[in-house]
Amino acid sequence: MSEPIDFYFDFTSPYGYFMSEKIDAVAARFERKVRWHPILLGLVFKETGAQAPIGLPLKGPYMARDVLRTGRFLGIPYRHPSKFPLPTQAAGRAYYWLHGQDCGLARRFAHAVYRALFVEGRDISAPETVIALAADLGANAGVLAAALATPEVKERLQAETAAAIARGVFGSPYVVIDDEPFFGVDRLPQIEMWLEKGGF
Amino acid sequence: MSEPIDFYFDFTSPYGYFMSEKIDAVAARFERKVRWHPILLGLVFKETGAQAPIGLPLKGPYMARDVLRTGRFLGIPYRHPSKFPLPTQAAGRAYYWLHGQDCGLARRFAHAVYRALFVEGRDISAPETVIALAADLGANAGVLAAALATPEVKERLQAETAAAIARGVFGSPYVVIDDEPFFGVDRLPQIEMWLEKGGF
Repeated sequence: MSEPIDFYFDFTSPYGYFMSEKIDAVAARFERKVRWHPILLGLVFKETGAQAPIGLPLKGPYMARDVLRTGRFLGIPYRHPSKFPLPTQAAGRAYYWLHGQDCGLARRFAHAVYRALFVEGRDISAPETVIALAADLGANAGVLAAALATPEVKERLQAETAAAIARGVFGSPYVVIDDEPFFGVDRLPQIEMWLEKGGF
Repeated sequence: MSEPIDFYFDFTSPYGYFMSEKIDAVAARFERKVRWHPILLGLVFKETGAQAPIGLPLKGPYMARDVLRTGRFLGIPYRHPSKFPLPTQAAGRAYYWLHGQDCGLARRFAHAVYRALFVEGRDISAPETVIALAADLGANAGVLAAALATPEVKERLQAETAAAIARGVFGSPYVVIDDEPFFGVDRLPQIEMWLEKGGF
């Protein structure tokens, strides 16, 4: 039995969203499971000294165009949100709390958060939005709202981000298969070849 | 008759090397020509504030691994050179001078420089190496050596780099097809779809 594939992402990452729409199906073709790990890219960039690419000269305008084209290329609906990039603490914290209750629910919640941001243009930095998305999937809104304010829940997201950095994660999406790292949704063809051949 | 595709690259860029081994054949399938533009990434990064990725925390070690794997994925021979990254002024200047004499020779020279660095591990920052590579292809070594020292030849490479920056080029490889920009060798599948469909 192979280890699950690890998928690291930030909820404000468009390429992370694209990967989220693909990775489970690709893994399933090779009878592999995927562990999802939302992280905070802000903490990662503090560690590495990098900046959000969308804010960089020349690269930022390129990325704005490339994201739209890459969505069309991959056949994934995408509309660029007006509020972007945005903080993802609430979404990341809610994910791990939900995961502690029901891991299938957490997966559906992650999809809902990404689609709320990148298809519907909703402000997923607001805890109310995050709680509403979870409640739509059957979570108890009041219990989740209370949990989001606890130190344990805040620390969990920080610890997951620290563990990701320790593993070498420097951006989103970042996928690790049997210790082999793949950065970016454009590594999907290499990921498929790797799973098919067991490395190359 | 369509405009040629523009291909911008620095001779010290491994992903630029991979693109150099692919782009002409891809373009030819769609009856398109390619204009090659060696540039100096050092000048580009001075403009954008970026740094060579190989030197960045976490991203650098990832890239060292990704380059080897991407070479295997694309079926292109690659050995990581011990001297890397290195200055490419001599190679870039020689390219444009040779292009003024014989554009086919310049293309063969560019392939020779890239393969000397990324297959044979030669130090292509040394003008002697660059001149020897050109001489092997039939260029006059003495005339080229004299040309490399002239202000006109030096300025040509700077002007080409400035023109690239003005067009939005922020890294290598960077391909422009009918004003649509594609950054990175991992955009080859999108380039092929773009050429096949005339945009998407």
